[in-house]
Amino acid sequence: MKEKTNEKITTRDVDFAKWYTDVCKVADLVDYSSVKGSMIIRPYGYAIWENIVAILDKKFKETGHVNVQMPMFIPESLFNIEKEHVEGFAPEVAWVTRGGKEELEEKMIVRPTSEVLFCDHFKKIIKSYRDLPLLYNQWCTIVRWEKETRPFLRSREILWQEGHTMHATKEEAMEETLRMLNVYKDLQENYLALPVIVGKKTEKEKFAGAEASYTIEAMMYDGIALQNGTSHYFGDGFAKAFHIQFLNKDNELETPYQTSWGVTTRMIGSIIMVHGDDRGLVLPPRIAPVKVAVIPIGDVDSTVEEITQQLKEKEISFYVDKTEKSPGYKFAEAEVKGYPIRLEIGKRDLENGEVTLVRRDTLEKEKVSVADCVASIEELLENIQKNLFERAKKRRDSMIYEATTYPEFLKITGEKNGFVKTKWCGNQQCEDKIKEDTTYKSRCIIGETTTGTCVCCGEKAQYEIYWGKQY
Amino acid sequence: MKEKTNEKITTRDVDFAKWYTDVCKVADLVDYSSVKGSMIIRPYGYAIWENIVAILDKKFKETGHVNVQMPMFIPESLFNIEKEHVEGFAPEVAWVTRGGKEELEEKMIVRPTSEVLFCDHFKKIIKSYRDLPLLYNQWCTIVRWEKETRPFLRSREILWQEGHTMHATKEEAMEETLRMLNVYKDLQENYLALPVIVGKKTEKEKFAGAEASYTIEAMMYDGIALQNGTSHYFGDGFAKAFHIQFLNKDNELETPYQTSWGVTTRMIGSIIMVHGDDRGLVLPPRIAPVKVAVIPIGDVDSTVEEITQQLKEKEISFYVDKTEKSPGYKFAEAEVKGYPIRLEIGKRDLENGEVTLVRRDTLEKEKVSVADCVASIEELLENIQKNLFERAKKRRDSMIYEATTYPEFLKITGEKNGFVKTKWCGNQQCEDKIKEDTTYKSRCIIGETTTGTCVCCGEKAQYEIYWGKQY
Repeated sequence: MKEKTNEKITTRDVDFAKWYTDVCKVADLVDYSSVKGSMIIRPYGYAIWENIVAILDKKFKETGHVNVQMPMFIPESLFNIEKEHVEGFAPEVAWVTRGGKEELEEKMIVRPTSEVLFCDHFKKIIKSYRDLPLLYNQWCTIVRWEKETRPFLRSREILWQEGHTMHATKEEAMEETLRMLNVYKDLQENYLALPVIVGKKTEKEKFAGAEASYTIEAMMYDGIALQNGTSHYFGDGFAKAFHIQFLNKDNELETPYQTSWGVTTRMIGSIIMVHGDDRGLVLPPRIAPVKVAVIPIGDVDSTVEEITQQLKEKEISFYVDKTEKSPGYKFAEAEVKGYPIRLEIGKRDLENGEVTLVRRDTLEKEKVSVADCVASIEELLENIQKNLFERAKKRRDSMIYEATTYPEFLKITGEKNGFVKTKWCGNQQCEDKIKEDTTYKSRCIIGETTTGTCVCCGEKAQYEIYWGKQY
Repeated sequence: MKEKTNEKITTRDVDFAKWYTDVCKVADLVDYSSVKGSMIIRPYGYAIWENIVAILDKKFKETGHVNVQMPMFIPESLFNIEKEHVEGFAPEVAWVTRGGKEELEEKMIVRPTSEVLFCDHFKKIIKSYRDLPLLYNQWCTIVRWEKETRPFLRSREILWQEGHTMHATKEEAMEETLRMLNVYKDLQENYLALPVIVGKKTEKEKFAGAEASYTIEAMMYDGIALQNGTSHYFGDGFAKAFHIQFLNKDNELETPYQTSWGVTTRMIGSIIMVHGDDRGLVLPPRIAPVKVAVIPIGDVDSTVEEITQQLKEKEISFYVDKTEKSPGYKFAEAEVKGYPIRLEIGKRDLENGEVTLVRRDTLEKEKVSVADCVASIEELLENIQKNLFERAKKRRDSMIYEATTYPEFLKITGEKNGFVKTKWCGNQQCEDKIKEDTTYKSRCIIGETTTGTCVCCGEKAQYEIYWGKQY
């Protein structure tokens, strides 16, 4: 089937970046504002975020976490306590220097992340092993003074969650780091229908102040990576810098071990760039604010009422387009918005007791009886969810390459975008060289190896690793 | 029954202000931070807010509102567009003057409220009468650079929601203003168990830029008022300043009418100061994060399991105190936290097939059979919810006075705290004089009158009004 396009949206193969911002705008996900570098998340975009929040918040609570609210400002002296952390974030923070009419005695930054605020609090509330583990999460916005911004991907203000936990032992903290990484993987694969590669960041790419950073890497339609979530193991570095200690069971002072982990609205960018097509957005049913767009054609009120009543009972969200626009216009709009199913209820079909279901992912049409309609919708939603994941995985896998020699690596990266899997010596010099020669950065280490040689220097390999360009 | 006290909490009648901050701290609702003027909302405090958010968000959606996310920064030029608004807020805003290493070309404030951001957006998206009404809400934090701060009541950073709506006519906008005021009243009376007085702010006390401000006024245990929510009718003032126009059905340009309305975590302050006692917090069941504190005494695991399984099925939140502390200590802790019901499961009671329920509001004990336990809990929770409201209303009503002459007014306000209901000429000079003579401020106008005289100047009265001191 030839892809029909939407005239307000650039086609992907002509200009993928433009296609992306067009979809964000035309599907009413975001709007630009007079505030440079900040975006407005419009109701439809925010509703997607609300659905993601509901899923994640439930998972966090099921794994024993509780929500808190920390201040959004960090006094300069507090920010300066952990050295690596400051160096990592100082170039991109916003400074508050005046309150009301007065210059502040101590300047403050707007939080770019809240490790130091949590540590400052943990120091006061952690006294005994009985206080551990402390499993905290915060839903909030953070600020990073980015120069170039793109909706959902890079913005001066970012909507996110940040988990911060403290543990009595290294092992427990590492277990938590990986547990939350898996919660993210579950969210992305089973709800957002995003196939992801999970692994460890290199020393160069890890979070400022962390001992180890783990990441969830998704590949966009154009073969470019988006880091969709990270989980960090801090060891006792921050805890020592902040003098956090607890009395163990033997009444001895020990330093606890720490984690933090976060995901942002950037995941919405992934959903757009993995599932979308030239007609607009395509949303996975499990996070779609509207699962069914009901489009009445002619006077079919009683059938609309009958079916929507059943949808309500099944808690399947829907939208009835009662505007005066033409059916064709309404179809296009339902496509732009990425509603998983379009239900056309027309007078002619009804003479045969039928209605038409159109699935957004494949655009296939199907006639079903009014009586079977809601059951068919339920089944179709499951199918669409599954198909989106399978389709994305197939496409991604077709863009994952392997290279064992540097000429091979240069050939692949010179010809196409995608991920390249190689062996690597673990040396940052090779990582830097690859970046310089190809603009590819390390995505993540997926394991250790005892065989083979580094794709770059040819020395003995230590790791298996993915490389890719990134947003 | 003589009131037993908690040694960590000052008694109310000794020092109410100290009692309040003690309860906030000892019940683990908040903690102070190294960030001057900002508080940390701890998990237990935040869970109360989450319950309030869930109730309100549902009500907002049922009344047709959708959530959005606007930027948190406002460029100086945008902030300056509506004159009265700027004058009202300029003295208390935080200024961001630097991003990364660079001074900003245009300074920004951190939003103290978002009218101008919404107007800037509305200007772009409102074109036709078909776009109206626009019913938006935002959950976020705002910043007001307060000098003196108190947990939940006054803080540099405030967690709140702000509704912003646009309408084709004055009537619709006014209807919305009052509709949302009623949503707040419903929340406060039926969920937070707070009796409130609802009315209109005087010209002097209204929101900067509004044509009319409506308010929800609660009275604390000490007779002092807390403004628990406001709803503003803007007319077309902001819309004109921002050049927002729409084409009506006759294809003519018109200016739309606007509202905004908000409530904050300050309501948690009200819950504490209205229902709390010398043993600590007392939470209304409908917003209590933990409705039942289960305290096993001795080896009673199987009964604990049996009852909590039933509580789970009924979705009644509970907490089992399995720590090694003494029962007396656990009782005191459950009281401090204000759990509506304490369920004591003891070996001796169980020999008679019984357990003990203690209601937090009256501290009355009751033995019930294990078989009836959960049904009794359900009934008791309803009773407690009702009793808290009735008790608070009775106390509040006993502290509402009426005065017709100024000597009467001065006598009442000189002797006690509370609300004083009077007639008033509507003249700000009288309002100022009352403030100066008594520190009482106008709470709200509850109606117009054609009879009687102003309590202050003795001229013909125009309004019935409440006066009171305020937090």
